[in-house]
Amino acid sequence: MGIIMTNKTAIINDTICAIATPQGMGGIAVARVSGPQAIEVVSRRWKGKSLDQMPSHTVHLGHVTDSAGQVLDQVVLTLYRGPHSFTGEDVVEIACHGSRWIQQQLIISLIDAGCRAATGGEFTRRAFAAGRMDLAEAEAVADVIAAQSQAAHRVAMNQMRGHFSHELQQLREQLLHFVALIELELDFSEEDVTFAQRSEVIDLAQHMRDVIHRLTSSFHTGDAIRNGLPVAIVGQTNAGKSTLLNALLHDDRALVSDIHGTTRDVIEDTITLQGTLLRFIDTAGIRQSDDAVEAMGIERSFRKLDEAQIVLWVIDATTPVADITTFSKQIVPHCTGKHIVAVVNKTDLAPATSIDAALSTILPEGSQVVAISAHRRDDVARLEQCIVKVAAMPQIDEDAVIVTNVRHYEALSHAEQALDRALAALHDGLSGDLIGQDIREVLHHLGTITGEITTHDILGEIFAHFCVGK
Amino acid sequence: MGIIMTNKTAIINDTICAIATPQGMGGIAVARVSGPQAIEVVSRRWKGKSLDQMPSHTVHLGHVTDSAGQVLDQVVLTLYRGPHSFTGEDVVEIACHGSRWIQQQLIISLIDAGCRAATGGEFTRRAFAAGRMDLAEAEAVADVIAAQSQAAHRVAMNQMRGHFSHELQQLREQLLHFVALIELELDFSEEDVTFAQRSEVIDLAQHMRDVIHRLTSSFHTGDAIRNGLPVAIVGQTNAGKSTLLNALLHDDRALVSDIHGTTRDVIEDTITLQGTLLRFIDTAGIRQSDDAVEAMGIERSFRKLDEAQIVLWVIDATTPVADITTFSKQIVPHCTGKHIVAVVNKTDLAPATSIDAALSTILPEGSQVVAISAHRRDDVARLEQCIVKVAAMPQIDEDAVIVTNVRHYEALSHAEQALDRALAALHDGLSGDLIGQDIREVLHHLGTITGEITTHDILGEIFAHFCVGK
Repeated sequence: MGIIMTNKTAIINDTICAIATPQGMGGIAVARVSGPQAIEVVSRRWKGKSLDQMPSHTVHLGHVTDSAGQVLDQVVLTLYRGPHSFTGEDVVEIACHGSRWIQQQLIISLIDAGCRAATGGEFTRRAFAAGRMDLAEAEAVADVIAAQSQAAHRVAMNQMRGHFSHELQQLREQLLHFVALIELELDFSEEDVTFAQRSEVIDLAQHMRDVIHRLTSSFHTGDAIRNGLPVAIVGQTNAGKSTLLNALLHDDRALVSDIHGTTRDVIEDTITLQGTLLRFIDTAGIRQSDDAVEAMGIERSFRKLDEAQIVLWVIDATTPVADITTFSKQIVPHCTGKHIVAVVNKTDLAPATSIDAALSTILPEGSQVVAISAHRRDDVARLEQCIVKVAAMPQIDEDAVIVTNVRHYEALSHAEQALDRALAALHDGLSGDLIGQDIREVLHHLGTITGEITTHDILGEIFAHFCVGK
Repeated sequence: MGIIMTNKTAIINDTICAIATPQGMGGIAVARVSGPQAIEVVSRRWKGKSLDQMPSHTVHLGHVTDSAGQVLDQVVLTLYRGPHSFTGEDVVEIACHGSRWIQQQLIISLIDAGCRAATGGEFTRRAFAAGRMDLAEAEAVADVIAAQSQAAHRVAMNQMRGHFSHELQQLREQLLHFVALIELELDFSEEDVTFAQRSEVIDLAQHMRDVIHRLTSSFHTGDAIRNGLPVAIVGQTNAGKSTLLNALLHDDRALVSDIHGTTRDVIEDTITLQGTLLRFIDTAGIRQSDDAVEAMGIERSFRKLDEAQIVLWVIDATTPVADITTFSKQIVPHCTGKHIVAVVNKTDLAPATSIDAALSTILPEGSQVVAISAHRRDDVARLEQCIVKVAAMPQIDEDAVIVTNVRHYEALSHAEQALDRALAALHDGLSGDLIGQDIREVLHHLGTITGEITTHDILGEIFAHFCVGK
């Protein structure tokens, strides 16, 4: 696991800078400088009232210069003195005109004056190191920035505001109480208290296990909220799969994602329909074929299909029913536990009625059938309604705690397993010191989530996914 | 000319909002609210210390809510009380997390609370209307934001900081002095003072005419600085024109433009080589052809070639000299007054020596020859050096006033013509009241630049080219 360190031991002593606003051109852009020498470094490029004695949280109009001392821009400077800043260090934010040239030159000028260019997430990492937020809260900052739907936003915002950390903190207190009870049992192990204690201890362990289980169970929803509900579009060649996807993508209510690997390593098309984020899975290879080599590719596509929670099966309304039945025998066995929406397309060319009858025998119970013309966009809105209804994403309220992060999910799963072992040991009447070992493991796993226990490698990996400037 | 109005008569009484930072996702984004109800509107969405009594230029940490009253984000709010703000009105800037979702929802929430979405340049237009800057300074804001090279940046920055306006102000004072002299002459027209006065008046008019002429003359340079020096790449099919352009574009020192119609209506490829902005003109159609219809397209391309100040003639080193001579007879006659740089390409396939001898007889005096391999990128850096040297863009110092704006150029040209008429009238001994008419015209044209005289239409056109949020 490498070097174990706590957030208190991280040593940071240089001053970093980055543009904090989105890349590109705009009215204004903001450069952020953080570190022990933030005010000193900026002063070297500042033409305005001296910043030395300025109190925290003050705003100043002035000019910044390039390395040669020539005026680069008129800017608004905001000064924050540590620890009352985002990072807990001295922070200077410089709002300049949003030209690419100025942004580039300002960063060059600040680096020449003694800053280092910040790496991705370094400001947030410093906030974590300074104890301004725990690791789960820090991770939520990136999720808040990447959130594309109301649900994803709210879950990330709740996590950033500490709701998840608060729940973990409560668990931690219960675990420490549990350890105290176990130790009490050890101290008085020769006496009569054991039985009464053990019943209370089992109740407490069961309660904690239930809480952790609720959290791990929420990951199924959380992953769909954060990364999108996985949807596969399948169907025979020329059934209109691309036209349908385009109709969904180009609809005014659909929001197309163009985020490049900020929080996810794999890029897939995502759209937001009525607040529900859908992630389309590439199953382009699924077709009928007798070719052995091609069959391998088809097999791969079927494995991708297994990830889907919703399957949109696009059917050309002009196709003979026999063909549909044949194709269904490929598809339907792969759809156990998934929602199938049969999309009868090209209603502008043929009526859907004859196919409807056939589908009622082919499709499993609970499947949906929607007839559309993707080309003419007839009834595409009705299909969207159907998808959103089938997706059945829960409403997220302001206090909801839902696990969205696979790292947290893994830690909680390990904690749950250790707690299960402790419960089994309690039921088997094993001694307290053996149970204590499992409980310390639960504490360890929960500690990795909030960052009391962590490693350089893990921190590096977490913050590498952040955008520069945050 | 429509309704004549001054900047004092514009009536503005609603409150506007927009995202001021570049579009997209980043660490933070800034929403700007300006207008008489800015503080009141933001207070409806603010959870934090009451803003009512907060002094200007203060920074506050708190939360903003959506229309339903649910927390949207934790934000840093900066409050500016008019007239001590960019627009001269009350301004609130809200720095939120840079998620697209939050940015979108924040603007929706502010609009629901009583704002109107700002149109392009509306904040700057209000700054102009409030007398915080004149029109030439306001126009320079957009140029500062769009500037892609040091020269363009410095020229725009000088204009924004009022150097151009100061020069116009001096001219205005001289013109008013001139009018006073003319009136004096009218008052004493029966007496002996006329001759002495007229000599002083002519000197003054000549001086003003020289100043205006220097400004109009600077437009040639100013246009190249702001929009890029026009460069044509010509040559026979397969000479390697595209490979060369790619080699120039992909070079680390080249900065590719992806600005979409912000300050220019026509989009062309531009790159910055060592601080010089080059604008490539599309002359793709130039080739040898006997086809009559195709010849029309070729003719059009030749007209485009006429715009170029530099012609890069790409020659395949493996081409027979006779072919080069034939092609040169098409190209060279169109290059009068332009710099020709003959780029002998594909030196990896054939030596350039035999062609060099031929070129010395073909090319006009002062032309340059550079041998490269665009494919292997050999000597591309040397070609860049040559282009930058031929371009010979002047160094722009911190006080330089250079006209870059075609609107200003036109107004100055009209002013120069009117002043020429006044000078001729003075020399012809015409009476002062006739001359006064010309001088009033000069004053009018200069007034349109700084915005003392303007129309709604012209203002609309100027600010329509701004990005939203500025």
